[in-house]
Amino acid sequence: MYPVDHIGIAVADLDSAVKPYQSEFGYSLDLREEVPSQKVEVAFLKAPNMLIEFIAATSPDSAVSKFLEKRGPGLHHICYRVTDIRAELGRFASLGYTLIDKEPRPGAHGSLIAFIHPREMQGVLTELCQREL
Amino acid sequence: MYPVDHIGIAVADLDSAVKPYQSEFGYSLDLREEVPSQKVEVAFLKAPNMLIEFIAATSPDSAVSKFLEKRGPGLHHICYRVTDIRAELGRFASLGYTLIDKEPRPGAHGSLIAFIHPREMQGVLTELCQREL
Repeated sequence: MYPVDHIGIAVADLDSAVKPYQSEFGYSLDLREEVPSQKVEVAFLKAPNMLIEFIAATSPDSAVSKFLEKRGPGLHHICYRVTDIRAELGRFASLGYTLIDKEPRPGAHGSLIAFIHPREMQGVLTELCQREL
Repeated sequence: MYPVDHIGIAVADLDSAVKPYQSEFGYSLDLREEVPSQKVEVAFLKAPNMLIEFIAATSPDSAVSKFLEKRGPGLHHICYRVTDIRAELGRFASLGYTLIDKEPRPGAHGSLIAFIHPREMQGVLTELCQREL
């Protein structure tokens, strides 16, 4: 069974977004990096049982820019950590799920990531990631 | 530091919503119950490190009905599990956060719950809960 790796929150500005979660919740920074494949910069904070990812666009044509224009900042996706992402993508495709990424691509933490379309997931953009802990 | 207790997903129909998460992810049902104070019926599934809550409205004037009308099904809130919810509400109020619930009210699992407004939380509706595990 796959754990929830992180919840993703789309934000306009990373610095001001992580501040309340660091000061009021006491969560520390796990990682901050650019993910060129998605045209975003991300910051991960460590909650005791999972990570919380804050995502800011680095380009107006990033999917996150479009999300922010349409909805404003807020909950963006759930990511599940899997052990074999290629096998899982094959399994979800064979079950009739719509894959946004048919092949995994590089994500943060040196991970491989892929997104499943919200359509068959109750409107929830769903990410799979494979990474070393 | 407070763990993430659950992620809430607003859905039109509980049965069809939980099905893919049970069959494809292997998550088992933790609890299903009506929460009259919120005019919703909820089902919690157990991921290895947290719960995932599915929320369906039981009345057209439920806040979840309005959410579904406006946005359709999808990610609804994050809930953090705290040890003293009254103390936390006081702390967040004193820090300038807008409380939706100034006093805790009964939630699922025999818990006490309260919501913090998305305004100061990067657009994320934020729930605190206090409950026995």
